[in-house]
Amino acid sequence: MRNPASNMIRLTYLIESTGDPERLADKIASDQSTGTFVAVPGETEELKARVAARVTALRRLAPVKQSSFPSSEDGPFNRAEADIDFPLDAIGTDLSALMTIAIAGIYSIKGFTGIRVTGLELPGAFAAAHPGPQFGIAGSRRLTGVHGRPIIGTIVKPALGLRPHETAELVKDLIEADVDFIKDDEKLMSPAYSPLEERVKAIMPLILDREQRTGRKVMYAFGISHADPDIMMRNHDMVLKAGGNCAVININSIGFGGMAFLRKRSGLVLHAHRNGWDILTRHPGLGMDFSVYQQFWRLLGVDQFQINGIRVKYWEPDESFVASFKALQQPIFSGADCPLPVAGSGQWGGQAPDTYERTGKTQDLLYLCGGGIVSHPGGPAAGVRAVRQAWEAAVKGIALETYAVDHPELAASLKFFGDGKAS
Amino acid sequence: MRNPASNMIRLTYLIESTGDPERLADKIASDQSTGTFVAVPGETEELKARVAARVTALRRLAPVKQSSFPSSEDGPFNRAEADIDFPLDAIGTDLSALMTIAIAGIYSIKGFTGIRVTGLELPGAFAAAHPGPQFGIAGSRRLTGVHGRPIIGTIVKPALGLRPHETAELVKDLIEADVDFIKDDEKLMSPAYSPLEERVKAIMPLILDREQRTGRKVMYAFGISHADPDIMMRNHDMVLKAGGNCAVININSIGFGGMAFLRKRSGLVLHAHRNGWDILTRHPGLGMDFSVYQQFWRLLGVDQFQINGIRVKYWEPDESFVASFKALQQPIFSGADCPLPVAGSGQWGGQAPDTYERTGKTQDLLYLCGGGIVSHPGGPAAGVRAVRQAWEAAVKGIALETYAVDHPELAASLKFFGDGKAS
Repeated sequence: MRNPASNMIRLTYLIESTGDPERLADKIASDQSTGTFVAVPGETEELKARVAARVTALRRLAPVKQSSFPSSEDGPFNRAEADIDFPLDAIGTDLSALMTIAIAGIYSIKGFTGIRVTGLELPGAFAAAHPGPQFGIAGSRRLTGVHGRPIIGTIVKPALGLRPHETAELVKDLIEADVDFIKDDEKLMSPAYSPLEERVKAIMPLILDREQRTGRKVMYAFGISHADPDIMMRNHDMVLKAGGNCAVININSIGFGGMAFLRKRSGLVLHAHRNGWDILTRHPGLGMDFSVYQQFWRLLGVDQFQINGIRVKYWEPDESFVASFKALQQPIFSGADCPLPVAGSGQWGGQAPDTYERTGKTQDLLYLCGGGIVSHPGGPAAGVRAVRQAWEAAVKGIALETYAVDHPELAASLKFFGDGKAS
Repeated sequence: MRNPASNMIRLTYLIESTGDPERLADKIASDQSTGTFVAVPGETEELKARVAARVTALRRLAPVKQSSFPSSEDGPFNRAEADIDFPLDAIGTDLSALMTIAIAGIYSIKGFTGIRVTGLELPGAFAAAHPGPQFGIAGSRRLTGVHGRPIIGTIVKPALGLRPHETAELVKDLIEADVDFIKDDEKLMSPAYSPLEERVKAIMPLILDREQRTGRKVMYAFGISHADPDIMMRNHDMVLKAGGNCAVININSIGFGGMAFLRKRSGLVLHAHRNGWDILTRHPGLGMDFSVYQQFWRLLGVDQFQINGIRVKYWEPDESFVASFKALQQPIFSGADCPLPVAGSGQWGGQAPDTYERTGKTQDLLYLCGGGIVSHPGGPAAGVRAVRQAWEAAVKGIALETYAVDHPELAASLKFFGDGKAS
């Protein structure tokens, strides 16, 4: 979110402690800027005016009985939300500096029984300093040729273990099923049994052949991530040269450095998988809100952001997914910095109505069904049609069961997946 | 730690759940390799033999009353530690693949009330695939000229806000105090009020001048981190060209990509600050042990690893610091992959005896005192002497109070910092 003050970065922290949250808010402001634990000669008033962070608001919240970190003390545990303003001049626009000073350092401070970063408002200088998405929503629509409905995607399964020619056989069926988007499972990068180079060679001719026949080009996201940015760029170049247009990026596993390096040189749509993120947010009293985290990756250039969905197979509750979706829809500085939200995990047509209703009736999303398409009893082509039908019903406000009466693929889907078999 | 099996990567997980931990261990093995939630055609026995992860041991632990993640269910919460072997062929030696498959993905799995990664054993193939430290312990000793005792370091304070000429004035005093090592606070990189280039220009001549006069060259660690690896490399080159030999790297804020890129091109000792790490380890039922985390960064090439100390100002208890120190002392594949442990935070001479006793009586460490040196009542030179005296006493097994009788700087230090004023 944009901070109206042009020279301040505002962070919001959820503080939990047996002591006084106000004192801890002051401690964050001091520790993360000028202060240390003993008076040092150079800490002058002039210096403080230049770089000191300041608590600008403190909202006391109801105490909780149970501490977030285990505590030897008894509750209740006091809570408050504190806004702290950091001068832009003290941090600059480098995202590693912002992360280090305003977020990473606070987790080590003593005296908290819980600490979570819940808000981040950036001044306009960050807009000019970072590339943001290269393709985003508009580019994803242009390259897939899908307009006026969600982009429907699927994932090659099993996640790991298929050899390139086996993957290609599955992909052939998925392409013929007229799906818009296909991706490698995020766990598949370039293992010995399926080197990326061989996978690209086996898959891309199928996609290009169909494009030539039908004019429709499936967007295929290849797993190009690697800890070494030089190798990742080689992977990127290999996909681009073969006519590919998308890549799965494990953003946490490559870090800001990998992402920044790639984005500057990229010709591919960058589809972000946030694996590892959950440990930073799953405990509600600890870590970080997605609304904070996603701003870093959007500024760095994520085009498509995978964020779970309604009734997923994972731990994340629906309201958390909805909040994440809305965070991605909100411009940081302008609509151009909004990536395409990707709903995935345990999805089939069944979640279309709730997804549509709860995300502000938008169809600007990539709706990703793995087993929900490939395991449809009528095969993947029927699976794709069923998902499209479910979205048509959702947008028209017709119950799936009603719409299924004259849409047999959806009917088969309701019968098969209605008991929770999708993934 | 090295896995004696040459074709397996072994992970150990601490599992907590209201259900059966054995079932969840199986679920990790399945979800993180071949499985999905619905049978898919390609999941053959041959494929499973190629890439399936397998639970090789399950050790049941005493249940706990309180869940780690908040739970709507009542306890007790069952716990077990599970060893899971991943075939090397399924992952390869890329650290982003290892992180994604064996660690990051598990945090999203439903059904846990707690999940922590407590062990990692790598096969020998990882040794050849990664550079490891370029300088490590031997290089740090060679470049500082310090042998037979700990390297004594300090940090410029206040952490933020000083202009380059003000920093240089402080550094001048610290150099004359005969300290071995000086560093920028990890929060100081290249803000508008203190651009790295100007800081280097102001500080390096002082260091080189003293080297010419005395033959002693202080190791100064400049904050070169940046989310963009190209900019970080420019920073690196600037320090190297000016005659510098060390840099502070905020490893989590630049990520594997930034670190891998830098290490391949680096001529500087890379001093790692792990800010942000605490949120991954502070809750004992969640996240990761340092013994796991540090292996990634050592393989990537960290030379000096900051890990807190005894009686720090932060949350971390002494036993956690000691375990971290021992993890760094243990070769992954050989002694050459051991970085120099760095004890810091609230340190002065007072913690020398416990640090020495509890870390296996080693003097192979960088002992970092901020306020503990610069705020010594006799000035920084007396502060440095006091810390050296404390270490002499510790190694000789003489109580600090006794040794202080004819070591006045130590005596002044005990009087001043004995009440916990250091930082």
